[in-house]
Parts: sequence; structure tokens; C-alpha cells
Amino acid sequence: MQLYDYLPSGNSYKVRWVAARLGLKYDHIDVDIHAGDTHTEAFLALNPAGQIPLLVLDDGRTLAESNAIIRFLADGSDLVPADPYAHAKMLQWQFWEQYRHEPAIAVARFICNYDREMRSDELAALMPKGEAALATMDAHLADRDWFVGQQCSLADVSLYAYTHVAEEGGFDLSQYSAVQAWLTRFASQPNHLKITDHPND
Amino acid sequence: MQLYDYLPSGNSYKVRWVAARLGLKYDHIDVDIHAGDTHTEAFLALNPAGQIPLLVLDDGRTLAESNAIIRFLADGSDLVPADPYAHAKMLQWQFWEQYRHEPAIAVARFICNYDREMRSDELAALMPKGEAALATMDAHLADRDWFVGQQCSLADVSLYAYTHVAEEGGFDLSQYSAVQAWLTRFASQPNHLKITDHPND
Ligand SMILES: N[C@@H](CCC(=O)N[C@@H](CS)C(=O)NCC(=O)O)C(=O)O
Ligand SMILES: N[C@@H](CCC(=O)N[C@@H](CS)C(=O)NCC(=O)O)C(=O)O
Repeated sequence: MQLYDYLPSGNSYKVRWVAARLGLKYDHIDVDIHAGDTHTEAFLALNPAGQIPLLVLDDGRTLAESNAIIRFLADGSDLVPADPYAHAKMLQWQFWEQYRHEPAIAVARFICNYDREMRSDELAALMPKGEAALATMDAHLADRDWFVGQQCSLADVSLYAYTHVAEEGGFDLSQYSAVQAWLTRFASQPNHLKITDHPND
Repeated sequence: MQLYDYLPSGNSYKVRWVAARLGLKYDHIDVDIHAGDTHTEAFLALNPAGQIPLLVLDDGRTLAESNAIIRFLADGSDLVPADPYAHAKMLQWQFWEQYRHEPAIAVARFICNYDREMRSDELAALMPKGEAALATMDAHLADRDWFVGQQCSLADVSLYAYTHVAEEGGFDLSQYSAVQAWLTRFASQPNHLKITDHPND
């Protein structure tokens, strides 16, 4: 299989991390989102949403949306709770990540890294939303090691991706001690890959 | 079980629709989101995200996020594809719904219904995003009856919720003929419930 990817992307990093953890092999195709590589006719034919990450299976079938891709790759592994309620709770946190966390924290990071001058009003509006998301996580983790149940699940993977680089978006993680302890726990998982580790190296 | 709900909410409607389709019984608790009912201390203790829909099981455990709740309720039913790839495709469309569709179409509808004067700039910015989402759906449905596979799945439920009321947000559905045919197919499903049907009536 092939993964269309851009190294700094947290959404793509979720996929790389799960593949490394589970020892899955794939061809890594670097895409430059700033050069418009996701808006070419060829790429839009693969993913009409014009975004990475995108997985292409050996038979040509495609899969988009980071949280759907990692669910597909991790099916049957210990990253996916078997109990129906725990499974639904994992999905709850993953939908929350896409609805309330990523649109604030990932977008603030993107603006700080590439577009700070042009989008400073937008950035100011995102900060309280990102802080509220971090506070929700911190409260949840106050008496828990993992988001769902007693071990690392895809909910943790989805939330780790942009939380651990939230300081690039101007968020002060030192205020969230339970989140910090969880980030350290997560980085101690077997086969942990960093967001800066290129899978081909 | 109990569902905290607000009748006009499309996110809550997904849950009502699935429960009606599968013949599941629950207590329906009306919440007035405009009166601040989702921001009371009592409600925040149930759902720190301060939003409906919220499901409370008979043992007191809670579940938030519409797409996670319907997955929990529909587990093992014909609304959830068993094939791993089809299952992941269903999730792809549901994550896409929360990331690209709902934040444009549901928010435009909310603004038109309650806040048109104050938020007209925001509304103008949402229109092209909602139109792009409808065009993506229309292209996908051009040669398909359902979003995934050969029958109605939770992907259709998630996307129907705000698409079928998109005209309340100022979108012109007559431009999207494949979407219109799919809306008609969806409304012909067994036990179809309308968004205006109160479950207690
Ligand atoms: N909801 C999607 C979001 C994907 C996304 O935002 N991808 C960004 C990079 S992180 C991208 O491809 N941006 C280029 C573009 O939108 O043109 C997911 O979870 O995979
Ligand atoms: N991502 C959530 C969104 C839920 C949501 O937006 N709920 C709205 C009504 S549709 C709400 O409770 N609004 C009140 C508030 O945010 O204070 C889901 O899919 O359930």
C-alpha cells in the first residue's frame, strides 16, 4: 500500500505512528501541500477532498480521513477496544478531536508556522478554543492514564498528534500537568515514532 | 437509557432516526440550547463538552458525539458494514461530515435561523464551503445509491441529517440532482422518522 503524506502534518503522523507501532510496511509518497500537490487533477482523482493523508491499497482502492485510516490499519489490534461501549468512547474522543481540537490547535499551529502576518485575527479567535480543548483533556486525564480504558487506544493516537506540538501554535502546555504526564506515557509506547522521523530513513 | 436532545438539532436527529429505525426505546429529555441548558453545572457534569446529543445508559455511563452514539446503538445491525474496508469508508464519510460538511452547512442553518443580522460575514464565508461539500456528495452519488456499498449505512444517516435541511441555511439543493435522488431514497427507509417528529408523540 501507499501513503500520500506530508511530514509536518499531524493528521498524517497518526497513520505513520500506527503503521510503525504495528510493523506495517508501505510506500511513503511525499506531497508538498504548499506547492499545490493536493490540488492537481491526478491527486483530486484519488481524493476529491484534496487532502493528505491518503492511503491507496494494492488493488487501487483509496481511503481518506486520518481517523478512518488508522481504524482500518489497526483493526483487530490492541489499539482498538473490543468492548462496544469502550469502542464507542474511543470514537467519541476521535470525533471530538476532529470537531473541537484539530480545528483550533492544528490550525493555530499552521498559522504560526506559515501565515502569522495575514491571519492574526483568526489566530486570536482560535486560542481560547484550543485552550478549552486542552483543559477538557487535562480534566479527563486527571485520574486516568489513557483516554479510554486501561491502555493506549486510537483515541490517544488521534489526540497526541496535534497536542504534543501545540506549543508551535502558541499554547502553553506547562499549564496542563495531566496532559504532560500523558504525553510522556504515550512517547514510551513500543516502536514510538516521532513526527519528525521520516519513515524511509 | 436517556437521550438529552433538542428537536431542531441535526446531530441529535441522527440518534433519534437510528433508534426509530432499530426500534430502540429510550427516555427523551428536551434541552433548550438557547436558554443555556447545556451549560448548567449539572449538564456539564454529564458532558464537559456542553453539547447535545448526549446518551446516558441505565448504569449512568455517558456517551457524547452523535456519530459515536449512533455507532454504539447500531452495533451489529445492517447499518454498520461488516467488511473492514467498507467499515473504514463509512468512518471516512462520517469524519468528513464532522470536518467539512457540518461546520459549514449546520452552522449556516443555525445562523439563518437565529443569528442572521449579527453573523452575516461569517455566513458569507460558509456558503462556498457548504456548496463544495454538496458538490463532493453529488459527484460521489452520481453512480451510486448509497455512500458506502449497496445499502443504507451510518454514513448516509450522518450526511442526511443536515443535508436534507440545507435549504434552511440558504443552499439551493436543486443544483444537486444526485443528492436529491438520494434524499428521496433515504426518506423511504423503513421506520423513517422526520426531524420534526417528536419521539414522544
Ligand atoms: N480531516 C482530515 C484533515 C486532513 C488535512 O487537514 N490535511 C491537510 C494537512 S494536515 C492538507 O492536506 N492540507 C492541504 C489542503 O487542504 O490543501 C483528516 O483527518 O485526515
Ligand atoms: N460534534 C458534536 C456536535 C454537537 C453539537 O454541535 N451540538 C449543538 C446542537 S446541534 C449544541 O449542543 N449546541 C449548544 C452549545 O454548543 O452550547 C456531535 O456530533 O454530536
